[in-house]
Amino acid sequence: MITAAVLGASGYSGAEVLRLLNSREDVEVAHCVAASSAGKSVADVYPMFAGMIDRVYEPYDPNNLSGVDVAFLALPSGEAMRIVPEIYGKVGRIIDLGGDFRLSSPNLYQEFYHREHTASHLLADAVYGLPELNFDAIQTATLVANPGCYPTSALLALLPALRNKLILPSNIIINSLSGVSGAGRSASLEMSFSEVNENIRAYKIGKHQHIPEIQSVLERAAGEHVSMSFVPHLVPVTRGIYTTVHAGLLDNIREEDIAGAYREFYRDAPFVRMKKEIPQLSNVIRTNFCDIHFTIEPRTNQLIIVSVIDNLVKGAAGQAIQNMNIMFQISQERGLQKEFAQ
Amino acid sequence: MITAAVLGASGYSGAEVLRLLNSREDVEVAHCVAASSAGKSVADVYPMFAGMIDRVYEPYDPNNLSGVDVAFLALPSGEAMRIVPEIYGKVGRIIDLGGDFRLSSPNLYQEFYHREHTASHLLADAVYGLPELNFDAIQTATLVANPGCYPTSALLALLPALRNKLILPSNIIINSLSGVSGAGRSASLEMSFSEVNENIRAYKIGKHQHIPEIQSVLERAAGEHVSMSFVPHLVPVTRGIYTTVHAGLLDNIREEDIAGAYREFYRDAPFVRMKKEIPQLSNVIRTNFCDIHFTIEPRTNQLIIVSVIDNLVKGAAGQAIQNMNIMFQISQERGLQKEFAQ
Amino acid sequence: MITAAVLGASGYSGAEVLRLLNSREDVEVAHCVAASSAGKSVADVYPMFAGMIDRVYEPYDPNNLSGVDVAFLALPSGEAMRIVPEIYGKVGRIIDLGGDFRLSSPNLYQEFYHREHTASHLLADAVYGLPELNFDAIQTATLVANPGCYPTSALLALLPALRNKLILPSNIIINSLSGVSGAGRSASLEMSFSEVNENIRAYKIGKHQHIPEIQSVLERAAGEHVSMSFVPHLVPVTRGIYTTVHAGLLDNIREEDIAGAYREFYRDAPFVRMKKEIPQLSNVIRTNFCDIHFTIEPRTNQLIIVSVIDNLVKGAAGQAIQNMNIMFQISQERGLQKEFAQ
Amino acid sequence: MITAAVLGASGYSGAEVLRLLNSREDVEVAHCVAASSAGKSVADVYPMFAGMIDRVYEPYDPNNLSGVDVAFLALPSGEAMRIVPEIYGKVGRIIDLGGDFRLSSPNLYQEFYHREHTASHLLADAVYGLPELNFDAIQTATLVANPGCYPTSALLALLPALRNKLILPSNIIINSLSGVSGAGRSASLEMSFSEVNENIRAYKIGKHQHIPEIQSVLERAAGEHVSMSFVPHLVPVTRGIYTTVHAGLLDNIREEDIAGAYREFYRDAPFVRMKKEIPQLSNVIRTNFCDIHFTIEPRTNQLIIVSVIDNLVKGAAGQAIQNMNIMFQISQERGLQKEFAQ
Repeated sequence: MITAAVLGASGYSGAEVLRLLNSREDVEVAHCVAASSAGKSVADVYPMFAGMIDRVYEPYDPNNLSGVDVAFLALPSGEAMRIVPEIYGKVGRIIDLGGDFRLSSPNLYQEFYHREHTASHLLADAVYGLPELNFDAIQTATLVANPGCYPTSALLALLPALRNKLILPSNIIINSLSGVSGAGRSASLEMSFSEVNENIRAYKIGKHQHIPEIQSVLERAAGEHVSMSFVPHLVPVTRGIYTTVHAGLLDNIREEDIAGAYREFYRDAPFVRMKKEIPQLSNVIRTNFCDIHFTIEPRTNQLIIVSVIDNLVKGAAGQAIQNMNIMFQISQERGLQKEFAQ
Repeated sequence: MITAAVLGASGYSGAEVLRLLNSREDVEVAHCVAASSAGKSVADVYPMFAGMIDRVYEPYDPNNLSGVDVAFLALPSGEAMRIVPEIYGKVGRIIDLGGDFRLSSPNLYQEFYHREHTASHLLADAVYGLPELNFDAIQTATLVANPGCYPTSALLALLPALRNKLILPSNIIINSLSGVSGAGRSASLEMSFSEVNENIRAYKIGKHQHIPEIQSVLERAAGEHVSMSFVPHLVPVTRGIYTTVHAGLLDNIREEDIAGAYREFYRDAPFVRMKKEIPQLSNVIRTNFCDIHFTIEPRTNQLIIVSVIDNLVKGAAGQAIQNMNIMFQISQERGLQKEFAQ
Repeated sequence: MITAAVLGASGYSGAEVLRLLNSREDVEVAHCVAASSAGKSVADVYPMFAGMIDRVYEPYDPNNLSGVDVAFLALPSGEAMRIVPEIYGKVGRIIDLGGDFRLSSPNLYQEFYHREHTASHLLADAVYGLPELNFDAIQTATLVANPGCYPTSALLALLPALRNKLILPSNIIINSLSGVSGAGRSASLEMSFSEVNENIRAYKIGKHQHIPEIQSVLERAAGEHVSMSFVPHLVPVTRGIYTTVHAGLLDNIREEDIAGAYREFYRDAPFVRMKKEIPQLSNVIRTNFCDIHFTIEPRTNQLIIVSVIDNLVKGAAGQAIQNMNIMFQISQERGLQKEFAQ
Repeated sequence: MITAAVLGASGYSGAEVLRLLNSREDVEVAHCVAASSAGKSVADVYPMFAGMIDRVYEPYDPNNLSGVDVAFLALPSGEAMRIVPEIYGKVGRIIDLGGDFRLSSPNLYQEFYHREHTASHLLADAVYGLPELNFDAIQTATLVANPGCYPTSALLALLPALRNKLILPSNIIINSLSGVSGAGRSASLEMSFSEVNENIRAYKIGKHQHIPEIQSVLERAAGEHVSMSFVPHLVPVTRGIYTTVHAGLLDNIREEDIAGAYREFYRDAPFVRMKKEIPQLSNVIRTNFCDIHFTIEPRTNQLIIVSVIDNLVKGAAGQAIQNMNIMFQISQERGLQKEFAQ
């Protein structure tokens, strides 16, 4: 039996971790921590869990967590770098769903997150938890930085083509559409129904904190400098990320080369589905799947890749569970497949 | 191992039966029948099932179905009364998700379904499959008429009060709001996004085919004539039924009497959750739960009951699985609880 | 030229008043007041108005308002009773879109609004601004209490039947579905997109502040005690009110009697459309129309009335403009008809 | 008084033309033609128009149309090239809202519309009706090809930069998000609410019929070959086009150069609003405005332009009215400004 703690369990991602762990016979949620909701029952905050998850949110106390096998951190940006040093070494493994340990450079962190990194000594220990890229390193990691939702979809779209030198490393254009739950569970006018419904908006053009995350992983895979532009958009759906990528195809690359590269790269990846049809968001909602499709446009010599995930599952909680499975030598799919699907 | 056949497996309810059975170790879907999609793979029609359900739709052939333990019929209205006589006795048990076997009177069927009942000799064999009401009869039934989505929510709201003589049997007013998936999977202008989005409409006022279904079950429970009015509305959500009931409270009934009657009636009902707060639709979506709340309005002496379900789960496929579980002496909750939620 | 002031012009209703007045050649908005947005331009708060409404929000100062012909108050509940005494007599006419002057009884106000009424000496001066009921009194009123959105739809549904003694004055059941803009423009978790989308909820059962408003107007029209129950629901649309009413039909009332009563009552009402088909919400959105349809249900002897409006237009700003037109002897339809429609 | 005929007046675009003309004192709709709805009243098909537009759809008969000053054609693709030759010369001016006369090359038409062009002799007469580009030619045109919705937003985003040689003519990437009404008013499974809601999908990648339209206009403006890629997406909103463009900035171009070029290009364009903030779709819905914003991304040397319109107004009916105004020497804004907003 694996013992787990979930910190930030009253947010959307944390609740999704709880939901997924709840179906597991082999994992026990020993601590369900939510500072802002401490003392309330989970079913008070999420009435959908009534009759299913019968427990009370605890306040955060690092001493209580000692000895748990794995701690999931689903916290607002900036909190994990405060908490991780307090529990590092006391808990077996840490999976941080936030952005604090995804960038290896404290300077980039400061530039894009607008605060100083206060636990930069731990950055070298963190493994970027994209299982399709870093399976082996995740197995032995003590601290996993679970990828962001946008980076998950963008990287899975681009990594096979870039690593196999099928596309130009410059002029890569990534446009992503996100559901609203990605903004987290909080009160704000701009996320109110009347402001989001029948509306679309791009935001943080050129400034989004996922830009350095995507770029640095791409560069490591490509082994060279990559120039890419990323524009996120908010659309009126609750869940999901829909990413459309344009990249210049290198000369003499044929469709079979691309298909082969993706097939090979995802040979052992149970959650990536290469699709002949253009993906629809609804087909991955509430699943850990990433559906990927590519089109060659001969007129422009562009490779156009579409990549679709559920932001709260493959883009957050599901990927965290997948990482846990890998860390504990369990099948990646445990708790993540049959239970899902619309 | 229970062997099952699903007929009409390419519609929304049929696909939901497939999805639920897919998580079962103790049930094998031996036949997946969809006349209109025969030859196509399930994942072609529902790409979300790619990598999860790997099978091809079969055409309907009653001979193929002989010997299966249970057949689920998720067919357009009028088709089940043609098919049931062809397979009755050949398959172990039949669970019909449609309306053909819910009314014991062929005359009422003709009045509300606008066609003659062609299998009226089997009506007496059919058990109305509302587990919270007919658990014992379902156990031994060979033909279960799975309740309609509106009746499920309305009956679960009213049965405890009516059977315990807490409310007047006249002047019962039922208003229900339904998601669009209740209309089935088909092309129509009036169900197109541009016509449904940002819109609400009542329909079939005084004429809906669920009126005699609700009324006859209520009258059996009350042991007297019941006068009730039911108005369904279409609202822009994909799934769910939200039912608000008004009924006149009998004299000297106190809140404890009502709470006690509901508690008692649902003592062994794992899927009914009595709520102190007014229910929200989202809390039952993708679950087999029915959330019920009542308010006494002293100013008008009305009992106001709110009852909420997912139309495709507790209102169709989930309830069908629950009925199957009961018929085969399995825990009602098997395959219906942990796998759900949000 | 009529000079107008709009107070609370940065909320949804206030902005709708601004929008409607903007198309008028015969009205000049002399003051555009919004304490919380003072100093900002209207187009900063509502970018849709860029290039159309070029002005800056003013702070509230009663002295500035002296001499304007009409002041529209679109303020949060409780503010109008503080402001009206400060400007009463200084401005020509006041139209209050809020609830502070709708109830003639300060006790009822305290019971349902949970605060003491601090301007109860002005309640007798206030005319309830439902033009289809109080046309003559509105013409000469100095203080108009613009009806609530729910009451507008419920009263227009019921008044002809009740005044003509066609229905029982007891057991009237009103169920209403509201769009989210009715909750106003503010940050809240429960009105966030992720919480409202794909969700439905009833609220304030038996406690809504519109209950005494509806009941008192009905009783004045009926000339006797009326027992009615009202349940509001929130559904995921931005605008609109969809009201379904059940009432017991009196003996020997025929369809022609009802049709005749409604036709007569609304003979001079340009914004009420009696419909043969069941109304759809989308047909009244952004218009000042109220679409009404009735069905007689012989089985239960109920009269079922459906009444549909746009909550921000006929349920707020449009009705306020209609009232202004009446007060200034202008055609009711000026600025409210051709400019609308989908 | 201008006399107008509207052909295809029962589709979404045709109805929008009717709605806009209805507010005009200077235009009389002499013929309201809809073959499929002939004999029905407009208010039967669009109940929202009850009490506002009181007329009956006529069948198409070219002889009836003789002598009208202007004919609006809002027809399915392929019908205009059959009808235009029958009425050309008989009616004063023709404004075709469809795609039949937008491409000057019959070969491109065949390639992207999958049918032979049967009125190619008239292609040379057609003026591309983008007023911000072709104001003078529209004034004297007898046949105006009203631009497509996607091209309108893409061209308004790109023309000033391209014509002023601020961006590279290659590697232009256009991603557009469209509301569902763009698909027209018809029954289809894939446009049904249950399939569109909570879903996103790209479609026709590399094959959309608007590709040659965008490219040919861009090339004429640039005076050289342009390489651009366009990917349309369907998102769950009823109206609107949200376009995000990436283009490589030429060396030494500063922000002031770009701002100046756009300011100059749109100096006399009352419907283009250059925005400092990133545009939101909701701010242009039901208006004829196009909101445009640009960002320079120094890291990638990309110019990122966002351009937003209402697909049925600036992307169809509103632009058609604007063209009519220009053709008849009326202010462009007549009937298109004050009546809108929110």
